[in-house]
Amino acid sequence: MALSKKPYKGCRDFFPKDMRFRNYIFDIMEKTCESFAYEPYDGPLLEEVKLYLAKSGEELIGDQIYDFTDKGNRHVAIRPEMTPTVARMAAQVHREIVKPFRWYSISNFMRYEKPQRGRVREFTQLNIDVFGAPDAIAAYEVVDVACTLLKNYGADQKMFSIQINDRVVVDAVFKNILKLEEEQSLKLYKVIDKSKKVTTEALDKMIGEVISDENATLNFKKYLNLSSFEDLILFLKEYNLEEKASNFISFNDKIKDSNIKEYINFDPTIVRGLDYYTGIVFEIFDKHPDNRRAIAGGGAYANLLQIFNEQPLAGIGFGLGDVTLKDFLESHSLLPDLTKPSHDLMIAYFDEESEATALKLASTLRTEGVKVDLSLGVMRFKKVFKTAEQRNHTMLAMIGENERKDGVVQLKNLKTKDQKNIELESIKEIIDFLKNI
Amino acid sequence: MALSKKPYKGCRDFFPKDMRFRNYIFDIMEKTCESFAYEPYDGPLLEEVKLYLAKSGEELIGDQIYDFTDKGNRHVAIRPEMTPTVARMAAQVHREIVKPFRWYSISNFMRYEKPQRGRVREFTQLNIDVFGAPDAIAAYEVVDVACTLLKNYGADQKMFSIQINDRVVVDAVFKNILKLEEEQSLKLYKVIDKSKKVTTEALDKMIGEVISDENATLNFKKYLNLSSFEDLILFLKEYNLEEKASNFISFNDKIKDSNIKEYINFDPTIVRGLDYYTGIVFEIFDKHPDNRRAIAGGGAYANLLQIFNEQPLAGIGFGLGDVTLKDFLESHSLLPDLTKPSHDLMIAYFDEESEATALKLASTLRTEGVKVDLSLGVMRFKKVFKTAEQRNHTMLAMIGENERKDGVVQLKNLKTKDQKNIELESIKEIIDFLKNI
Repeated sequence: MALSKKPYKGCRDFFPKDMRFRNYIFDIMEKTCESFAYEPYDGPLLEEVKLYLAKSGEELIGDQIYDFTDKGNRHVAIRPEMTPTVARMAAQVHREIVKPFRWYSISNFMRYEKPQRGRVREFTQLNIDVFGAPDAIAAYEVVDVACTLLKNYGADQKMFSIQINDRVVVDAVFKNILKLEEEQSLKLYKVIDKSKKVTTEALDKMIGEVISDENATLNFKKYLNLSSFEDLILFLKEYNLEEKASNFISFNDKIKDSNIKEYINFDPTIVRGLDYYTGIVFEIFDKHPDNRRAIAGGGAYANLLQIFNEQPLAGIGFGLGDVTLKDFLESHSLLPDLTKPSHDLMIAYFDEESEATALKLASTLRTEGVKVDLSLGVMRFKKVFKTAEQRNHTMLAMIGENERKDGVVQLKNLKTKDQKNIELESIKEIIDFLKNI
Repeated sequence: MALSKKPYKGCRDFFPKDMRFRNYIFDIMEKTCESFAYEPYDGPLLEEVKLYLAKSGEELIGDQIYDFTDKGNRHVAIRPEMTPTVARMAAQVHREIVKPFRWYSISNFMRYEKPQRGRVREFTQLNIDVFGAPDAIAAYEVVDVACTLLKNYGADQKMFSIQINDRVVVDAVFKNILKLEEEQSLKLYKVIDKSKKVTTEALDKMIGEVISDENATLNFKKYLNLSSFEDLILFLKEYNLEEKASNFISFNDKIKDSNIKEYINFDPTIVRGLDYYTGIVFEIFDKHPDNRRAIAGGGAYANLLQIFNEQPLAGIGFGLGDVTLKDFLESHSLLPDLTKPSHDLMIAYFDEESEATALKLASTLRTEGVKVDLSLGVMRFKKVFKTAEQRNHTMLAMIGENERKDGVVQLKNLKTKDQKNIELESIKEIIDFLKNI
């Protein structure tokens, strides 16, 4: 039986037409991050499983991880996320380098998922983090990067919103208002995470399983219904807890004066699960009716270096996957037309004797930065135009017996129909002709 | 016990200082490939092991592969090379797309190696292939890409050479001159592969284990001692076998007229092992005395699509790993100084009240393509210059009480000591100042 030509389940083949979109998406990620002075980093494809266990607990490890034992008996996994790696790397160098330091990576990951819309097994994720900066301004910057990134793709506030909360505030609500024990708090975090995805009845039932006290239940619902940052502060003030929101207030003050304020909303249901976050947390939501979902999320963390026995280092970051981002850009028709390749010039030659001339011209033009698609082998004149069209060329250079004798190349702009014979030595003139595209 | 901060064995952490070199290397790869109209592609990180078995036989599969059984009971491996993947992808589309088609990829791979100089477990490789083009001109182009790539890093013919042979010729020598059976030929291919690495005595012994006939032994040694393409043709002519070299002759004719001829040498010992090659094969050698080794290799193959029950498709390509390339560039001092980051501007502010102004200026400049490193939080005037130096800045923008009142920003070129107050609204003037770097 012949082998399958399909990629491994849940993985993607990127043909050139797919890569053009991927590169477009990655290029804007890079440019945006670098415009904020974030510096690129990358880690290994494999990490030891105990690193993920230490950071995430059992949840992710169980089902979603591609783990195996290597030939040296190490229990390793293909990275399912970047955070443990970036924490490990930061732990190595944070004592020596100037703070704050800003890092970003665009790396591939694998998770054992059931493939479906927006979900594949191998994906790429942009991760950005800033370490060792004051909390509120660092949170502002990271949210600004996320927002600017989507704006750089052409998105606006009709298309996405950034939903924000602060884990310090949620912790205070749970502990000081609802008077929950730690174990109850953990359970209630899970309930919050699901609160938007279930019916009111199901939510009531879930709440009832965690909180028995009637007053606490009422207050929890009151919290869940807070619809603005101002309401949150009023709610906290009732219990003299506004000081718990000091960082969140400072963050919101910065937002108020900024050009990203129309994107930002307080959202009491954003807590980012049981994850390692300890401060401001946020998710970016697609507003498109067909695609209402989080396309990215992040937050602040203080204790990520603890597992390496290192002193605490404040950090905040976010991750954004390529699949959800592409779905977002497609839903809002924000992707440019990249269905066809673009080169600068096709060179064709009509007899064997012209080949060396064509090769030399191609080589010289490439040195000048021109992307040259050279026909490989002699071409019939009739076939040239069809091939140029198939390959999406606008500019065509042709060399045959006549041109060779005259020491020229025949250049043709297939759109304007301009054509001109230019001496082979006049590279500058040839390049000028190509510029009229 | 605290977790280790080191990466998994044989893998590398890429801190920003490492990434700057990696990106420099990758950028030149991309630019070179695109100047030859090669289009990017990529495949999945995992493939089913039977794909590698079908292509490579047992050799690679045994020790070097990172294989495991996934949760759906598929026997999979982290890709150790690109060829099986590119063959699988070409098999999917070759009937529909315009030929020739040129593809390149820069992807990460893993092999279970003993880490040492030039060898790690996770590496990146550039792979380029052209499919469906006439043999000799396609071989010329691929060798030209390899040569141009190294020249684009600043390398010249004192630093590297491209050693070339043709498997069709070797096959003819084995079959028609040495009169070997197929099994003997396979063994002799392995002997050739090792011939340069062993002593004359050891080589004689290895030859003796494959060939018993004295005349054949003599002829084989005569073949191994051929030192030029012209000698090879004379050798073949003795046995009326020059027609077997028709493709190789055509390839050499193109080289003769070209600007890459000084890099190219015929080398009878280049055969690329038992691999899938069926035509011209080549390896690029580093000439540096500390680093004499192949840094890349490739060749032509005709039957790679057979394992998918597809009709034959001529292909030729090569692979070049990032580790050996970096060793090469370092040995020849070809890497630029990328030890420090480069941003366009650092913005610092001296009081809380100036923060919003600084944020706004940063945001506007970023929109104009300026890479802005904004100080996160209020900075003391004294600390600004030290920080700017630590972060390798030449341009500094400062906003404090005075500037805020006057509606200006104070700009300073730390190299020339030029400084100027410019109105915050005059973005063009600010950018002009930054350009004088």
